[in-house]
Amino acid sequence: MADINGKVEEFDGKMLEMGSDDKGVILGLDGGATSTICVCMPLIPSSDPLPDPLPILARAAAGCSNHNSVGEAAARETLEQVITEALAKSGYSRSAVRAVCLAVSGVNHPSDQKRIVDWLRDFFPKDVQLNVQNDAVAALASGTLGKLHGCVLIAGTGTIAYGFTEDGREARAAGAGPTLGDWGSGYGIAAQALTAVIKAYDGRGPETNLTGSILQNLGLSSPDELIGWTYADPSWARIAALVPVVVSCAEAGDVVANKILYDSVEELALSVKAVIQRLGLSGKDGKDSFPLVMVGGVLLEVNKTWDIGNEVIKCISKDYPGALPIRPKVSSTALLRHYMLD
Amino acid sequence: MADINGKVEEFDGKMLEMGSDDKGVILGLDGGATSTICVCMPLIPSSDPLPDPLPILARAAAGCSNHNSVGEAAARETLEQVITEALAKSGYSRSAVRAVCLAVSGVNHPSDQKRIVDWLRDFFPKDVQLNVQNDAVAALASGTLGKLHGCVLIAGTGTIAYGFTEDGREARAAGAGPTLGDWGSGYGIAAQALTAVIKAYDGRGPETNLTGSILQNLGLSSPDELIGWTYADPSWARIAALVPVVVSCAEAGDVVANKILYDSVEELALSVKAVIQRLGLSGKDGKDSFPLVMVGGVLLEVNKTWDIGNEVIKCISKDYPGALPIRPKVSSTALLRHYMLD
Repeated sequence: MADINGKVEEFDGKMLEMGSDDKGVILGLDGGATSTICVCMPLIPSSDPLPDPLPILARAAAGCSNHNSVGEAAARETLEQVITEALAKSGYSRSAVRAVCLAVSGVNHPSDQKRIVDWLRDFFPKDVQLNVQNDAVAALASGTLGKLHGCVLIAGTGTIAYGFTEDGREARAAGAGPTLGDWGSGYGIAAQALTAVIKAYDGRGPETNLTGSILQNLGLSSPDELIGWTYADPSWARIAALVPVVVSCAEAGDVVANKILYDSVEELALSVKAVIQRLGLSGKDGKDSFPLVMVGGVLLEVNKTWDIGNEVIKCISKDYPGALPIRPKVSSTALLRHYMLD
Repeated sequence: MADINGKVEEFDGKMLEMGSDDKGVILGLDGGATSTICVCMPLIPSSDPLPDPLPILARAAAGCSNHNSVGEAAARETLEQVITEALAKSGYSRSAVRAVCLAVSGVNHPSDQKRIVDWLRDFFPKDVQLNVQNDAVAALASGTLGKLHGCVLIAGTGTIAYGFTEDGREARAAGAGPTLGDWGSGYGIAAQALTAVIKAYDGRGPETNLTGSILQNLGLSSPDELIGWTYADPSWARIAALVPVVVSCAEAGDVVANKILYDSVEELALSVKAVIQRLGLSGKDGKDSFPLVMVGGVLLEVNKTWDIGNEVIKCISKDYPGALPIRPKVSSTALLRHYMLD
């Protein structure tokens, strides 16, 4: 399967032929907190077998398209820019587009979907099919080869758990942002570590090696400089970038860092369990199997002693032994496959 | 004593006479997260007895001057604006100013003091004495009639504990902002309440009456609308304004709301205890008496069942029976008195 985030597969003569007939193209977008990717593919009739790798005609990348993070005007501009660039690279015009599938972080409410559809309605004619989802949907599809069934946990800068039943019901948990308690996220882990440093400095909490490690990482000389550092730039990703420092301290035996990571594991597992429970994914006896896709920087297998993703899986499996963990190496191009199959 | 935040005392003939000799005037500024007040007073020789009420020549008010909240340019503009207005009202020119005492929230590091002094250096000649402090210093003085001794706890939108020994040593705890764990603040209490609503909605936490009360207060119909509401305006004060809803729910017996308030009491008490401990305010036997000034919306006596300030005092008094709680009705004009006495 082609990797939406990786190197673009060069299309060969056959694919070019497929793309250059008058069936048109479809666009797939994956928008997260740091970047937005758009791929352009030929429309393949659902009766035809899908080629592997998928025939990616063009791929374009742009910045953040989460309106909660960068505002509506910037998010809209990013989407239009990345679509325009992908089409230009593919050699197709807007009139060739038959459908657009968008998986964007920050889609939390029907009004968020409506707003994005309204933006794209100015861009594409009425008969172009527009499908807007939270990016967790694409992340699930990336682990299940396009099938929307099971549960996905994303834990990067932010975190969200999202699930689908085979009959199309869906549920989510967390994904509410820093103010509303996403404590298992990369931002949450790092913010708790920074708080622990300040508390130790104040005499409100135990001493921790996080102090020396974080100050060194940020090039600061005293914990009281952290206040100015935090305020200087409110970007969540900048805070979340400290997660590897927390993991290193925990691996070296720091008690405070270990507590933060174990608390984070519990928070993440709790989000997933809430989704499993509400959808009944584990069946009546609690033992039915279902895919559990794990995505995002916090859950990466990095061959370290402290594997957060693995701890989350252990925590979930105790209650739901049928959870089949998938830590995908491919990406959300699979979402396109899902919509093409439908 | 004159109230810096209240109605200006009209100066009578005698005060006018005092102010109109050529000894000049001093300015006192109190800048918090919501407003900045500047008062202008005649310079009174330290050998003279202080008149009561203090001879306020003029008072001006402006918006937030915390650079962490509104940025440096806006904070500087606010300070210049409120100083200009107070001087214009007093009938004095800048050249009459002998000293400026600023107590501004967001002063966390010597570099913050230096920045504000640099701003004012462009505004006043070199011989004008400039004194920049965290606004907690003014709050302490407001409870101790100008004497900088003891500990002050501010808990409004934000929170900070600040203390001074009689020989001039000082220490602080918390006051680090939302990312760095000021969980006892108004923002902290309200953010935890919002998180509890989201967790209950997700199935990650117990049901709570906070859900109905907060949604009604905000005019929303479903908890998932809270995500958009939170992102729509990042102002801390807007979140903190929900504290009375949390207190009402706790008074009505809601378990989740009660836990949030008790946790907040512990956090606030811990900040104060850290300051007392580091400064040795309670003496060698732990029983020395010292003023404990309590300021800010979260700590107001509102004749309700759930008095957060009173619970904090009880929690501190267990360990430090010599703490003498003061919940001042006057304000930080007292800081001026302190600097005039020195």
